[in-house]
Amino acid sequence: MQSPLPRSTRPLRAPCATPATPATPATPATPATPATLLCCALLLASGAQANEGKWTPQQVLEQGPAWVKSQGFALPLGSLWDPKTSRGLLSNAVQLPGCSGSFVSKDGLLITNHHCVLSILQEHSTAQQNLAKDGYLARTQAEEKKSASYRILVPKAFRDVTAEVQAAVPTGAGDLARFQAVEAAQKRLVAACEQQPETRCTFAQFDGGLTFAITEFTEFSDVRLVYAPPESVGDFGGEIDNWSWPRHTGDFSLVRVYQGGKPFQPHDFFPVSTEGVKPYDAVALLGYPGLSFRSYVAAEMAERQGRFFPRVRDFAAEAIQIIEDEAKHSKEAELATSDEVRGLLNTRKNAEGQLAGLARGHILEKQKAADARVQAWVAAHPADSGTKDASEAAAGLEKVVGERLATWERDFLLDRVLPKALSWPLTLARKAHETAKPDLEREPGYQARDLPRLTERFERDQKRYHPAVDQRLLRAWVRRAQALPSQQRIAAVDAAFGQSATPEELAGKISALYGSSKLFDLPTRKAMFAETTAQLEARKDPLLALGLALDSERRALKEKRDAWSGAVLRLRPSLRRAVLAEAGHPVAPDANSTLRVTFGRVQGYSPRDGVGYGPQTSLKGALEKHTGAAPFNLPEKIQKAAGTPGRWVDTGLGDVPIDFLADCDTTGGNSGSPVIDAQGRLVGVNFDRVWENVANDFGYNPDVARNVSADVRYLLWILEEVEHAPALVAELTAAVK
Amino acid sequence: MQSPLPRSTRPLRAPCATPATPATPATPATPATPATLLCCALLLASGAQANEGKWTPQQVLEQGPAWVKSQGFALPLGSLWDPKTSRGLLSNAVQLPGCSGSFVSKDGLLITNHHCVLSILQEHSTAQQNLAKDGYLARTQAEEKKSASYRILVPKAFRDVTAEVQAAVPTGAGDLARFQAVEAAQKRLVAACEQQPETRCTFAQFDGGLTFAITEFTEFSDVRLVYAPPESVGDFGGEIDNWSWPRHTGDFSLVRVYQGGKPFQPHDFFPVSTEGVKPYDAVALLGYPGLSFRSYVAAEMAERQGRFFPRVRDFAAEAIQIIEDEAKHSKEAELATSDEVRGLLNTRKNAEGQLAGLARGHILEKQKAADARVQAWVAAHPADSGTKDASEAAAGLEKVVGERLATWERDFLLDRVLPKALSWPLTLARKAHETAKPDLEREPGYQARDLPRLTERFERDQKRYHPAVDQRLLRAWVRRAQALPSQQRIAAVDAAFGQSATPEELAGKISALYGSSKLFDLPTRKAMFAETTAQLEARKDPLLALGLALDSERRALKEKRDAWSGAVLRLRPSLRRAVLAEAGHPVAPDANSTLRVTFGRVQGYSPRDGVGYGPQTSLKGALEKHTGAAPFNLPEKIQKAAGTPGRWVDTGLGDVPIDFLADCDTTGGNSGSPVIDAQGRLVGVNFDRVWENVANDFGYNPDVARNVSADVRYLLWILEEVEHAPALVAELTAAVK
Repeated sequence: MQSPLPRSTRPLRAPCATPATPATPATPATPATPATLLCCALLLASGAQANEGKWTPQQVLEQGPAWVKSQGFALPLGSLWDPKTSRGLLSNAVQLPGCSGSFVSKDGLLITNHHCVLSILQEHSTAQQNLAKDGYLARTQAEEKKSASYRILVPKAFRDVTAEVQAAVPTGAGDLARFQAVEAAQKRLVAACEQQPETRCTFAQFDGGLTFAITEFTEFSDVRLVYAPPESVGDFGGEIDNWSWPRHTGDFSLVRVYQGGKPFQPHDFFPVSTEGVKPYDAVALLGYPGLSFRSYVAAEMAERQGRFFPRVRDFAAEAIQIIEDEAKHSKEAELATSDEVRGLLNTRKNAEGQLAGLARGHILEKQKAADARVQAWVAAHPADSGTKDASEAAAGLEKVVGERLATWERDFLLDRVLPKALSWPLTLARKAHETAKPDLEREPGYQARDLPRLTERFERDQKRYHPAVDQRLLRAWVRRAQALPSQQRIAAVDAAFGQSATPEELAGKISALYGSSKLFDLPTRKAMFAETTAQLEARKDPLLALGLALDSERRALKEKRDAWSGAVLRLRPSLRRAVLAEAGHPVAPDANSTLRVTFGRVQGYSPRDGVGYGPQTSLKGALEKHTGAAPFNLPEKIQKAAGTPGRWVDTGLGDVPIDFLADCDTTGGNSGSPVIDAQGRLVGVNFDRVWENVANDFGYNPDVARNVSADVRYLLWILEEVEHAPALVAELTAAVK
Repeated sequence: MQSPLPRSTRPLRAPCATPATPATPATPATPATPATLLCCALLLASGAQANEGKWTPQQVLEQGPAWVKSQGFALPLGSLWDPKTSRGLLSNAVQLPGCSGSFVSKDGLLITNHHCVLSILQEHSTAQQNLAKDGYLARTQAEEKKSASYRILVPKAFRDVTAEVQAAVPTGAGDLARFQAVEAAQKRLVAACEQQPETRCTFAQFDGGLTFAITEFTEFSDVRLVYAPPESVGDFGGEIDNWSWPRHTGDFSLVRVYQGGKPFQPHDFFPVSTEGVKPYDAVALLGYPGLSFRSYVAAEMAERQGRFFPRVRDFAAEAIQIIEDEAKHSKEAELATSDEVRGLLNTRKNAEGQLAGLARGHILEKQKAADARVQAWVAAHPADSGTKDASEAAAGLEKVVGERLATWERDFLLDRVLPKALSWPLTLARKAHETAKPDLEREPGYQARDLPRLTERFERDQKRYHPAVDQRLLRAWVRRAQALPSQQRIAAVDAAFGQSATPEELAGKISALYGSSKLFDLPTRKAMFAETTAQLEARKDPLLALGLALDSERRALKEKRDAWSGAVLRLRPSLRRAVLAEAGHPVAPDANSTLRVTFGRVQGYSPRDGVGYGPQTSLKGALEKHTGAAPFNLPEKIQKAAGTPGRWVDTGLGDVPIDFLADCDTTGGNSGSPVIDAQGRLVGVNFDRVWENVANDFGYNPDVARNVSADVRYLLWILEEVEHAPALVAELTAAVK
């Protein structure tokens, strides 16, 4: 499962190239004969032709119909997007909280991952009925379960706002002022955009500020659960198989989007293919990849490899141990933390995979070579006015890294606040601080448009709070803070807990803090949410006081970081111009939570010497893995139905297909992304990358660049042969040509 | 690594079919075009054509030249074996202690596995120099290290002795008498055979006594170590990779055989191929597979699956834990037990693999179906006089199983005596008991011909004794004996230790026993070896007394088992005649430590859904696995030389090859077996089966039937590019055509 990255509310630091140089026209593809297809297949199998590139819609359109055809896509370019009508297949790449999704029926049925609707499943779960575990099937529209907070965003316009943003930065602005000017422009542009009814707008920078764009979405807030498989299907293999192949996970779910109390009728949806995929089929994947960092210079990558990922891994490991320890003894603790522990396990495995992949792919060494190549190009082209600052820019970026390293450990700890006893007061403190300002001057995330979401999270989080777990998490966090070197102390922690404490002293102090705070009472906390800083201070609540003190340190840190971000905004575009010039062809920008298209082929890979992974798995393999104990506990109804594959047999496999690999270029946020075939029919739902490929966030390695999708035929088989839900199958397959 | 099974000294219960029906002539092979080769390769890859059969030399000769050619072997049948001169390639399948080997130079250089010469490496190791760990290379013949006890056997004749054995069984003999008559015949025949100078003879039964044969060997006792790689090459991957694929183990070694103080000049040897193998190449493998059990009826297999393997696994696991626990604190304990713990780990992994494979392959269910098929055939052919007793025979075999189960747990414990404080007295007691009889009446293993070997083992074992380990092993054994049900008690244990004891009482008693025994002093123990039962009793040594009492119970058990064996000798041949008649084609007999030939092809397999294993590994893969910590600690000199593959690159792999898979039909005892190509050139040395294939002892599963061989080019590369031993490389490759 891919980690759904939180959408950044600050201008994103990750870049994207809408290339200054015109796109190189691709040579028209010649029709493939069976023999060349075989050759091609072999070439693809050996990774000779790779599909690097999370292309922006604009890049796809600019590279033209011949190029799109050469990627294996058979529909005309116009079917992808018509800017005049805001219609086309691209508009069916829908953004969900941390995930992607797409419509698959004319009546607003939307497909995404099982793990992307967990919050809806939890929302409707009780101690008696655990939907996250048992799944849910609405046999009629009346049975569909509406979520109070789930929202989906359907794109309707992509707008370049580079000129507006650049005009907002005063000449000669310092780094902090530059950052603040860009942020202010972002807020102005988003606010203006959201004047339109039912509209949400997101702002993003590409290539570190070379260009900026706004995406306009229609927001739908009436989303109802139609089908989620039980956990033993939707998360079959669990943490053990997570990021792995071979995989046998039915990580899909269906919701229906309503508008005005009626099923929404989308203009575009993907007809569900009943034929499915076979090895070497061309596919395209659409969605909202969160962040990638391929435009980092080597010094920035070294900070990730040497500091960030090792610390993330260790931090997650400690929290997991605490939570699992408590969950062992308490059903309540288990229920409250299931979502959080899942996220932490995922975070840890991701960090481990990043480290393994960075080492295995020699990513840092390659980036050093790439940096040197770019500087050599710049030196060889002194007359190129666009790239003359590139050398200075590279040095500047390295200098920023050096500054960040000086207080790195403290800053990391201030970022990673897991206990709700701290994270809630921090939210309250910052919200009070920001809402004292006029709306447009507030930090993004605390503007009027954001507040309903914050309130909802506060309410939802009540279910995720467990006192014993929370106290132990806080103890661990304070212990880490007390262990910081003298030049990196957190003053609020020293004041509240002293420079050091025995475990017993600390446990006593923390237990007393919890006992004397009103924070954990939901109505009181909701009341606090409406209060000013002075009102919060007047409460003399000890956890609130700690939160207010910590927030003031975090705000100081934020200002330092905003200045660094301003420096990067000044430096990175100069460097990226040189990178693009040196490349001499279109380069897809780093992921930044905006819509991207990636083209690939269904194919396996070799994870290590002597081992080959085939591109498809089937029910037989799931039965082989089945032990009866979670996470390898296929439901009995699936086991029983295995003998009746019905019409959903893959002829190549001789069995019901489950998952497949392709070499689409994805990252976190692509969870739930529709995978479509050359004719634009939905064949699968993306839900993961393979372990060997998680370091693709930093560098693309064609040998192991594989994403994992659930085959839609597994869903159709379950609905038809296991759940006997003919109406739903009919709705899904109604549009098949 | 395959478990080198002890050669049975009783008439073997495993069967072999020298078929009563004439061999079906194979259709002559048509020359293969590249296209058909590809088809063939694909068919082989899918397991459509399997190579079941550990063929006896006689079966190979009888099935004729066309059949041999159809197995991919290009040399004329006559080159395999000429019975008149006792010469041919078969004579180059040499038997080593628990292993196989073959000559690879005209000057008596012999190749086998690293793990097959461990006893020589240990013999020449000291606390200062650990050859088992560091390896050894003799750069001149003068540096070759002679073993005091290692012997090799070169076959010179295969003789059917069925008529002689059958004539020795009196008409109407009871089961015990029948067994004893066959055993007496065995001893007479072997003794007569060994009248020839420097000759060792082995006796074997095939198909449970349908036929009997003698193999005559020339024995060589001057064996000198030439080359063994360090453990980090010869056992790279250790217990973790054991029985696994992909594998990167250089499990090979070279010894030189001397005769009259000069290098032996064998008539036949395998020229070493410098070309190596590629996928789908035909290969043949020769050697001495120990035991297999495919001719068991379902009830016999059920005893293995339900009792034997689970108990072997648990027993080994307990001993491993004891030894590892002690070895952690004591270098002496580690050195003394390294061989034993390796054997135990191997035993446990084998037992686990057998259980997994039996379940996965549904072997028992298939055997039930096969049993039923045979009985149906018999019922349909009432006029066939040869098979009329088959139904009664099957029932009789099931009855024997029932009798064995009644005292199964006690008997298992009496068989499994690990502590030397018991195994040494047991050997002394039995030796004294048997040597009181005329030589020909003694139990095999205690005849005059066997005594020098027993003495040698006594001396060698001194190095393998560690007091703390031994006492803990004895405590564990006694605790198991004290836990036996009342109808299965071991009287000697009850007498010595009581019906039960607290751990402290037991530890005290056992410590006192060791303290008061003279057994652990080698000169004294050697003196004991020459003594009669009365002399041993007169010593009043408490461990000797326990050994004598236990031995008397073991002799009673042996007599019970001899009667069961006599029953099986009466019953199995009747059943096997029916099995062979029903099959209607030649069936290779179960392995019984006699020479066998198996034909196969180099090919990978799929261990599970979505995963394919390629048939070859290379140095790159070993470097990927290298962590620096054992067992993944490639020597620095190997790492350094990886960049200079020299002439030993496999063009398909683009790297130095290490190991390869083929579908040869092997079992324990095949360790060190030569693997030759169609032209009879040595291309590898067999050293393992894959995990999925260990249950092939009970039933052949073509999908996973794969043996693992070390590629001889890895050895050549090490000798040439790492060790810079040109003379040895020249000797090995001198005969290449």
